[in-house]
Amino acid sequence: MIPRYSRPDMVAIWSPETKFRIWYEIEAHACDAMADLGVIPRENAEAVWKAKDVEFDVARIDEIEAVTKHDVIAFLTHLAEHVGSEEARFVHQGMTSSDVLDTCFNVQLTRAADILIADLEGLLAALKRRAIEHKDTIRIGRSHGIHAEPTTMGLTFARFYAEMDRNLSRMRDARAEIATGAISGAVGTFANIDPRVEEHVCDQLGLVPEPISTQVIPRDRHAAFFATLGVIASSIENIAIEIRHMQRTEVLEGAEFFSMGQKGSSAMPHKKNPVLTENLTGLARMVRAAVIPAMENVALWHERDISHSSVERMIGPDATITLDFALARLTGVVDKMLIFPENMIENMNKFPGLVMSQRVLLALTQAGVSREDAYAMVQRNALKVWEHRTDFKEELLADPDVTAALSTEEIEEKFDLGYHTKHVDTIFARVFGE
Amino acid sequence: MIPRYSRPDMVAIWSPETKFRIWYEIEAHACDAMADLGVIPRENAEAVWKAKDVEFDVARIDEIEAVTKHDVIAFLTHLAEHVGSEEARFVHQGMTSSDVLDTCFNVQLTRAADILIADLEGLLAALKRRAIEHKDTIRIGRSHGIHAEPTTMGLTFARFYAEMDRNLSRMRDARAEIATGAISGAVGTFANIDPRVEEHVCDQLGLVPEPISTQVIPRDRHAAFFATLGVIASSIENIAIEIRHMQRTEVLEGAEFFSMGQKGSSAMPHKKNPVLTENLTGLARMVRAAVIPAMENVALWHERDISHSSVERMIGPDATITLDFALARLTGVVDKMLIFPENMIENMNKFPGLVMSQRVLLALTQAGVSREDAYAMVQRNALKVWEHRTDFKEELLADPDVTAALSTEEIEEKFDLGYHTKHVDTIFARVFGE
Amino acid sequence: MIPRYSRPDMVAIWSPETKFRIWYEIEAHACDAMADLGVIPRENAEAVWKAKDVEFDVARIDEIEAVTKHDVIAFLTHLAEHVGSEEARFVHQGMTSSDVLDTCFNVQLTRAADILIADLEGLLAALKRRAIEHKDTIRIGRSHGIHAEPTTMGLTFARFYAEMDRNLSRMRDARAEIATGAISGAVGTFANIDPRVEEHVCDQLGLVPEPISTQVIPRDRHAAFFATLGVIASSIENIAIEIRHMQRTEVLEGAEFFSMGQKGSSAMPHKKNPVLTENLTGLARMVRAAVIPAMENVALWHERDISHSSVERMIGPDATITLDFALARLTGVVDKMLIFPENMIENMNKFPGLVMSQRVLLALTQAGVSREDAYAMVQRNALKVWEHRTDFKEELLADPDVTAALSTEEIEEKFDLGYHTKHVDTIFARVFGE
Amino acid sequence: MIPRYSRPDMVAIWSPETKFRIWYEIEAHACDAMADLGVIPRENAEAVWKAKDVEFDVARIDEIEAVTKHDVIAFLTHLAEHVGSEEARFVHQGMTSSDVLDTCFNVQLTRAADILIADLEGLLAALKRRAIEHKDTIRIGRSHGIHAEPTTMGLTFARFYAEMDRNLSRMRDARAEIATGAISGAVGTFANIDPRVEEHVCDQLGLVPEPISTQVIPRDRHAAFFATLGVIASSIENIAIEIRHMQRTEVLEGAEFFSMGQKGSSAMPHKKNPVLTENLTGLARMVRAAVIPAMENVALWHERDISHSSVERMIGPDATITLDFALARLTGVVDKMLIFPENMIENMNKFPGLVMSQRVLLALTQAGVSREDAYAMVQRNALKVWEHRTDFKEELLADPDVTAALSTEEIEEKFDLGYHTKHVDTIFARVFGE
Repeated sequence: MIPRYSRPDMVAIWSPETKFRIWYEIEAHACDAMADLGVIPRENAEAVWKAKDVEFDVARIDEIEAVTKHDVIAFLTHLAEHVGSEEARFVHQGMTSSDVLDTCFNVQLTRAADILIADLEGLLAALKRRAIEHKDTIRIGRSHGIHAEPTTMGLTFARFYAEMDRNLSRMRDARAEIATGAISGAVGTFANIDPRVEEHVCDQLGLVPEPISTQVIPRDRHAAFFATLGVIASSIENIAIEIRHMQRTEVLEGAEFFSMGQKGSSAMPHKKNPVLTENLTGLARMVRAAVIPAMENVALWHERDISHSSVERMIGPDATITLDFALARLTGVVDKMLIFPENMIENMNKFPGLVMSQRVLLALTQAGVSREDAYAMVQRNALKVWEHRTDFKEELLADPDVTAALSTEEIEEKFDLGYHTKHVDTIFARVFGE
Repeated sequence: MIPRYSRPDMVAIWSPETKFRIWYEIEAHACDAMADLGVIPRENAEAVWKAKDVEFDVARIDEIEAVTKHDVIAFLTHLAEHVGSEEARFVHQGMTSSDVLDTCFNVQLTRAADILIADLEGLLAALKRRAIEHKDTIRIGRSHGIHAEPTTMGLTFARFYAEMDRNLSRMRDARAEIATGAISGAVGTFANIDPRVEEHVCDQLGLVPEPISTQVIPRDRHAAFFATLGVIASSIENIAIEIRHMQRTEVLEGAEFFSMGQKGSSAMPHKKNPVLTENLTGLARMVRAAVIPAMENVALWHERDISHSSVERMIGPDATITLDFALARLTGVVDKMLIFPENMIENMNKFPGLVMSQRVLLALTQAGVSREDAYAMVQRNALKVWEHRTDFKEELLADPDVTAALSTEEIEEKFDLGYHTKHVDTIFARVFGE
Repeated sequence: MIPRYSRPDMVAIWSPETKFRIWYEIEAHACDAMADLGVIPRENAEAVWKAKDVEFDVARIDEIEAVTKHDVIAFLTHLAEHVGSEEARFVHQGMTSSDVLDTCFNVQLTRAADILIADLEGLLAALKRRAIEHKDTIRIGRSHGIHAEPTTMGLTFARFYAEMDRNLSRMRDARAEIATGAISGAVGTFANIDPRVEEHVCDQLGLVPEPISTQVIPRDRHAAFFATLGVIASSIENIAIEIRHMQRTEVLEGAEFFSMGQKGSSAMPHKKNPVLTENLTGLARMVRAAVIPAMENVALWHERDISHSSVERMIGPDATITLDFALARLTGVVDKMLIFPENMIENMNKFPGLVMSQRVLLALTQAGVSREDAYAMVQRNALKVWEHRTDFKEELLADPDVTAALSTEEIEEKFDLGYHTKHVDTIFARVFGE
Repeated sequence: MIPRYSRPDMVAIWSPETKFRIWYEIEAHACDAMADLGVIPRENAEAVWKAKDVEFDVARIDEIEAVTKHDVIAFLTHLAEHVGSEEARFVHQGMTSSDVLDTCFNVQLTRAADILIADLEGLLAALKRRAIEHKDTIRIGRSHGIHAEPTTMGLTFARFYAEMDRNLSRMRDARAEIATGAISGAVGTFANIDPRVEEHVCDQLGLVPEPISTQVIPRDRHAAFFATLGVIASSIENIAIEIRHMQRTEVLEGAEFFSMGQKGSSAMPHKKNPVLTENLTGLARMVRAAVIPAMENVALWHERDISHSSVERMIGPDATITLDFALARLTGVVDKMLIFPENMIENMNKFPGLVMSQRVLLALTQAGVSREDAYAMVQRNALKVWEHRTDFKEELLADPDVTAALSTEEIEEKFDLGYHTKHVDTIFARVFGE
């Protein structure tokens, strides 16, 4: 994570202040539950809530940690400074640091997921709007970077919508996966703490109790979570690459927004670079880079080792902050990107009419011409267009073998673009619903 | 994929024979749908089914491909040899190779998913059986490889069960994600083929029509699929590492099965190596190796490029075959692994009673001793056990400061193992249901 | 590895026949050394060479392995069938399986490296030839996919040459790293075998003795080896992407070879797809996929565990075979690729003269115009070209503010392409030497 | 990168202050060279050096960048504030941002490499010292985590030394690879800047001119650099895993340093956790996570795109800072780690004498006993030891079949540990030189 590629709400989730606030809530709710169970005095539980509105002093906690060499103990010591050490004596009773750390981490990831879900919803709105706007904007479809058959820009946006909609669904699943908490004590046996404490704390924090933990929450959940981020990042790359292609000088079918009047690089529109989407291409690589470490974290030794911790201290903030930033950046790009429909037509007609060659081939065979002959007819006329940029339709109309098989109307009809767009509505209905 | 780490059912999914069979079914069902729509003559559709029981000749198709340089055309040519070239003339009409290739690939992945789901179910059964068998088998829980507090072997199996049960659920989701088909023609506009053909073909093959395809089925689906395999592989590694640890000479709490009477390496049981679980550790790395390439495959150029194809020709078979093999191997290991309960007790008592030090510390503070004093009392007695391997309980009973705070019964009670296992039933109910 | 992406020489390195041949040589040379040291009788060492010309029977060895469950023992048993069990009794004495397996693996990797080195040399020759051929073929240089300033196609080939030349150097280093052998016995102490045996065997096989092994050869060597393959694969992707871009319909500055006269897809040259370089893009991902597993293999438990083995059984052949195939395919593509110099000029002039705008800007400021004013002058004329595709030079010559600062000759000179190519010779000398 | 896992010298390399200082030096040296060539006035070049001792104001530069949206322009503007805008007018003439950015990045990586090289040298010194110290400290060698044959702790340290020594060599190569600079102007043709400027700047900064750049320095260099970091990280993991194993309660052959007298967790030495080496295990994963993104960065579009930039802004600092921290932490751990030779002996004798079974087997066959019989003799006596922990040597001496083949002296001699350590000096000479 670096400030350049960060947004404040996601950054705030990973601040020490937020972390200590969540720790506090875990401890306070745990005390309540223990008081309900009669394990600790009610007044001690209540006393903890005295710190309810306290902004914990990160510098002070760091100072204590420098002595105790233990972050949770440092926090508890500081908490006692607010609550009173006598009153605070039952705080954390029967719990281990992992109960606090792992539950907190999952709260953070759950909140991060909420932001990412909102990001995806915002992106989907932009994609949908642009899809509808350009539903009928004709453009050549390309396979292998080569002109194939016509499609529409709306279909391009619609397929990105469908892909991101799947990602939204995956993100929701990932959120559900990670929204668990554990207050199960050393090695997870609840020997020193009643399972009902876990239930209460989880309930208060919007989590589900981890069915079986071993001091730590099992890391397959986190692996699945970060893998989901990696898939979403790959979809971002997919859209970014499309836009980068559209903006290249020879294509120029679209561009990241720039205003002609403006000063700056827009002064030379022919030099306006797709730097935002290039940036997204790189950011996607970085989000994906969290996936394998998260998977390597799954195999811990026995009931727990702490090898996962340094990884998560990095990828927790890094991957979520970067993905949040990337989704927001992409939404801005999609929302405002320039579309150049005239250039789309001009590109499609680079070899005039040639994109219809497949249709003509099919029509010839359907008219009873053998595959070989039909192929030869298309080939010889296509080559003329390729070499001299003449009009394919004109060439066909001038070829007696072709006109022997197909009438002028039939030939004309093969160049009707409506043929290619006739199912756009069907596809839109599939993607966006009726 | 290499034969050594392969099982025949999964290998069969990826054979050329299976592939051609699926291609055939796609083409034949498409012809049916086109006949229903009146696009092609009914008798031509029916003629295709003449090849229903044909075992396609892979060598012959390869021979044709050597000339045509195109696998789908080679297959269609061979199909026409069976059906008759006149009768076969409408086969594949309006379709592109990708319609066949991508739909086939998803059929293969769906079938692979079915095997993997069955594998997981088999593994879950083994884990559950061993969990129940060793529900009360006491063993020391370890954090950081260091003795912490007692737990049971049943809980170890139960947590692997819970993890693999999550993986089963993920695998089912992955299967649902990948069970789509597309018969949408060049660049996916259905210009040359009616969407109802796609619906019919998908319906017949147990797939859902891809809502929007662009000649290819979008690769985020495949990225999510292979990411799921990577998570499952990481869980396999997790179990493998536990067993490898259990079998090491100094621990010896369990072992991959060997029979004492047998010849071979079992002749020297002290040299029996956990080679199966070591092997699983390596196989997990290989399944994970498919994840990043699958994610890199998502960003295709425009409506399609074919960069994903070589990747998928490898990871399709490799990752599914390896994971299938690994799951089966792990199931065998879990099913038959030797558990040495006596060694578990012996290990736990390496420093007699010391694993209870935390409990004693807690009891002292609850009895009103200050944290510092309680810590000092535990420390001085623990150090004696550490240095001379005396019995911790005896040391405590001989320490007047300790006995001033705790009665003999109270001290004795701290060494009751039942304290640590009292919630095993609760946890089992959470994991396995009532 | 799949046959479609394999070449026979590299495949042969990984055949069981080759493996057994290398095992045989290791054992036979070890016997020689032991005889020299007087550890075993000379005649027994000589007897082993009776099998010198034997083609070992893989099926028979597999059959024995099915019983012994141990590949090296199976081989030794089969060897004894050729040599005579009495004569063969000292074979493998004091050695462990790893001595044979690891030394053999490194022999195979060394031979694979030799092929890859030859591949790179072949590729370099092709790149050099094309670089010289197109040294002066003018083409627009692009940053961000946007026209920047002119360069030459020769420089493009030259930079690929320089990059691949670095890869050649890396590959040679990787070969040197991996060309070690170990015959050090159990846990690598030479307790049962004299270090001079290792020296002799390594010497005979063209290897260097591993300074310190622990039954296994340390896997950092292999990690470095496969990382090198990953770097080379990434460079292949780099070249592949360039060619794919060149071939896209709107660019068409080059193409994978096709012959106009030919039948097949070349019949429609506008549909000729860069499938070979797309394929290379995918293959690069697969070679890279070996890197992380190879690195995960480094951390073995104590003196050895066998987790690395399954990984290496796969990535050993897969990564080398795939990279060999990719290098050869790329060499073919480079060697024969079509270059379209006229299209390069046409593309450069899409916005006539506009690529010189930066030069004009610089000239204006050098002529004493303030940055702001110079910028405004360039901007207003550039916009005309952007919008109406008029000629930039003409616009400048018609702008009195511009002509007030620069003479007609000065303006004309800014459009001289020789300005951009004046250092091509310098760069060629740097890359190819004088 | 996070402060917890950072050291100041490496962090300083990546500070904005350092970056601007390097940018300044590049620009100033370039002006000198241009003055030498007569391209710009000498006094303007000299004027730039007025800012020689200026501490550039990062906040001010950020402020300007907020307006200009361009980091290099913002810096140049700020530089002009120090130098005078008239005097500064030739600064950066003919250069592009990439000339500054890429050359600066390579300076930073080169300096990072210098620190990493020093780190490795420090680690090597610690490993060597501990190797010599424990050259003869007997310990059981383990394959598969299972007791195999005796070795020494010194050999363990020696093999880590040899591995890290290879890493030192790799790091030096990586440094040499990355120590290049480029001042080649737009698309790298030197159209607007003389190649001699590049030579001078590189010379002053301790770099080599990049033979052929394309505005950017080719990213295969960086891929190789980060791959090297990944290999080193994997070796760190290798050592970390060894120490973690040594410290586990059942093994206890070594431990990260703790002092018995101290307060804190060391109070309970049986609970002292190998948290530093567990942490290193995680950090290794994070350094490796940079490898694939660095490789994905190689394939840029045409002469350059900027997708690599966001990746490098992250992995540049992250991977070098983390690796520096990890190497330093590991050096501290190695330097001070506790070694428990008595426990090593105790562990070796868990099954008394059984680790010599292989030697006995060999001796029996050498004494003329058939393999089958020898095997059976060893097996039956080994089983007794396995089951009853009796002494293997005693069992052998009591077995008439064994004593028929081997004399008492011969049997005794098989249990001589000197047999296993006789080549330690040879190996040490290989590793450390004479």
